[in-house]
Amino acid sequence: MTPAPLRLAIAGLGTVGVGVIRMINRNAALIEARTGRAVEIVAVSARSKDKDRGVSLSAFAWEDDPVAMAKRDDIDVFVELMGGTDGPAKAATEAAIAAGHDVVTANKAMLAVHGQALATAAEASGKLIRFEAAVAGGIPVVKALTEGLAGNEITRVLGVMNGTCNYILTRMETAGLPYDAVFKEASDLGYLEADPNLDVGGIDAGHKLALLSSIAFGTQVDFDGVVLEGIGSITIEDIRAAADMGYRIKLLGVAQMTGRGLEQRMTPCLVPRLSPLGQLEGGTNMVILEGGDSGTIVLRGAGAGEGPTASAVMSDILDIARGTRVATFGQPAAKLAKAKAAKADTPAAFYVRLHLTDKPGALAKVAASLGEAGVSIAQMRQQGETEGLAQVLIVTHKTTRDALDSALSAMEATKVMGGHAVALRIEEV
Amino acid sequence: MTPAPLRLAIAGLGTVGVGVIRMINRNAALIEARTGRAVEIVAVSARSKDKDRGVSLSAFAWEDDPVAMAKRDDIDVFVELMGGTDGPAKAATEAAIAAGHDVVTANKAMLAVHGQALATAAEASGKLIRFEAAVAGGIPVVKALTEGLAGNEITRVLGVMNGTCNYILTRMETAGLPYDAVFKEASDLGYLEADPNLDVGGIDAGHKLALLSSIAFGTQVDFDGVVLEGIGSITIEDIRAAADMGYRIKLLGVAQMTGRGLEQRMTPCLVPRLSPLGQLEGGTNMVILEGGDSGTIVLRGAGAGEGPTASAVMSDILDIARGTRVATFGQPAAKLAKAKAAKADTPAAFYVRLHLTDKPGALAKVAASLGEAGVSIAQMRQQGETEGLAQVLIVTHKTTRDALDSALSAMEATKVMGGHAVALRIEEV
Repeated sequence: MTPAPLRLAIAGLGTVGVGVIRMINRNAALIEARTGRAVEIVAVSARSKDKDRGVSLSAFAWEDDPVAMAKRDDIDVFVELMGGTDGPAKAATEAAIAAGHDVVTANKAMLAVHGQALATAAEASGKLIRFEAAVAGGIPVVKALTEGLAGNEITRVLGVMNGTCNYILTRMETAGLPYDAVFKEASDLGYLEADPNLDVGGIDAGHKLALLSSIAFGTQVDFDGVVLEGIGSITIEDIRAAADMGYRIKLLGVAQMTGRGLEQRMTPCLVPRLSPLGQLEGGTNMVILEGGDSGTIVLRGAGAGEGPTASAVMSDILDIARGTRVATFGQPAAKLAKAKAAKADTPAAFYVRLHLTDKPGALAKVAASLGEAGVSIAQMRQQGETEGLAQVLIVTHKTTRDALDSALSAMEATKVMGGHAVALRIEEV
Repeated sequence: MTPAPLRLAIAGLGTVGVGVIRMINRNAALIEARTGRAVEIVAVSARSKDKDRGVSLSAFAWEDDPVAMAKRDDIDVFVELMGGTDGPAKAATEAAIAAGHDVVTANKAMLAVHGQALATAAEASGKLIRFEAAVAGGIPVVKALTEGLAGNEITRVLGVMNGTCNYILTRMETAGLPYDAVFKEASDLGYLEADPNLDVGGIDAGHKLALLSSIAFGTQVDFDGVVLEGIGSITIEDIRAAADMGYRIKLLGVAQMTGRGLEQRMTPCLVPRLSPLGQLEGGTNMVILEGGDSGTIVLRGAGAGEGPTASAVMSDILDIARGTRVATFGQPAAKLAKAKAAKADTPAAFYVRLHLTDKPGALAKVAASLGEAGVSIAQMRQQGETEGLAQVLIVTHKTTRDALDSALSAMEATKVMGGHAVALRIEEV
């Protein structure tokens, strides 16, 4: 007796949706061998029916309205690939849950904001929301964390989770180009979201980090608790100075549970150039999972693109076909603790760049401001001069961000600085 | 209503067994939150009851005979951590299957040889054999391949899967020491198996590769089809010459399905120094999974040790507690095709080191032998001379191993060589 096929409805036929259709067409025999049943697309929905997508849709029912499609009673799984925090994606996901379907989604923005409510609703009726494709594209990191390291207390999750930012930062370095020029290149190449701030502001990567945090620490997704800082203020000088000192600058996500609460940061950081993170080039993603027993597990792969993202969507679909039922965030959503955001970060060394007016005693005032705030200096160098301003680079010893910020405020008050200081954390990896 | 605890019997209380007991003790609350049920150790077995292992066994029934323990009717899962291809490990695993228990094992040797028969027997009665800990220690690579990339056609699996060999090779390079000296160091440090040939002969890593091949290509485990070559003939000169040319030498496992059959090799290879594999230091493991859609997924972590290996065992146990039921090799063992071993390898460039008698025309004879076999030379250098023998290093263009071997035989017949040539594949990664 052959089990019934697993029946899908796919909402959203952009790159990823088309990739999923292609994988199901191409690997049908493989999928059936591996899951013991066929996976079948019943219906699809997208904004335009007639667009040429390079795959035939003629075997599937067409639905103009994804919400109506989500309510069909001839499907088992609703595959949400439309994107967007609210709007049709959320409405259709809610409709699918209400209709008693499992949901597979690649939508990090929706889950980062509504994940707790959606997962609670789905689990109340024994249904699942799966989201491997929402984090780090083709890297099976949600599975590695939720299942592969399930026996571990997770101590820290960190990683580079936005390929566009990593492309921009590595391209600035290799081509010696300023941020604006590389930003324009990335834009021309179509690497940026419609709202580029989602990428370069760290928001997209912050969504992903918030999802991983929830699994790692058993807390409700808390995107508001993620300290966000984009890469727009990073200069080619910062990149070069970091390189001189043996570091590279990455938009790095870090989540860890501390005595002070849950710390979640998505900020540009310095990491050792010879570490796996420091060696990460271009659009590649890397996530590092630190377990109490497993030690450090590093995962690396394509963070975006048709094939990799479709591969992650398929992983969730095949899990459902095989009967694997793991709660959305690794434990029942209704039991997740509310995250208490840490008021202060774990101490670290910092890299500071600032510009000083070329007056006697200026550097002394900087040093005094640091000293008075209890921040001690590991390295300091003054170099170059443009328009009457000298650039000063400082590496501090381990300190708190609060102490550093109060030192920087004190410096600004002395009026010896031109513009604002840039301060980047040096993350121990 | 709380579900019944998952009841375990653990056979083998070495490092890994003790690690599993520690994790269950320490993370009991976490495990119950994540799986919805308690995980409980009912009975344990090992060679000596009285040895001090640093953990209390008083809460568990003691069994002198692991086979008797495997037959207990008050357990759900038999955890086999004794090791060994046959003997008690196999007898107890068979007994556990016959008694209707799931089995979790870290035993690559047993599965590489008897995996097909054991999995078929287990699956015939709806039971599982799980073996995350058998491959690459704490890295959840079995799960990544079986589930995370389940929708992909896998094109190639490769990796460094024996930490001891990688320790020896990187230590030779950094300390400038010959093989024998570092082998002795590793032995003194307790890094080597009781039969060191399991490590340095590539057998242990070959077992692991054969298991991954089965999952990747849907074929029955075929350890006999793995071409094995150890690291014993690698000299410090090879390592230096490779470094000069931008490579490092790794004991590298490669499995790929070709038109000529299944290719499985565990041999010392040259890999680009700046690739993730080339940058792998010390005892760390790395496995690379290449999927048709996912692209290249790199996984890196500790390949051995109490915590990492116990973490992998726990992943299997927690999957069972959660009700996840995936066939041992990703699809039913009874349906796996018999692997047809490839008669010839995929062409590659090769590194060749040989010694020539210092006679006029010797080098010409080498070049002629290569040319007549159709092997063309990309680089050749003659350097140094010891005891009347000059060392010659050659890098070929892409060729087959057969062509190269016939060239090497022809060279030997000319009697201009001292000893045998060393030929190492340059793997494209």
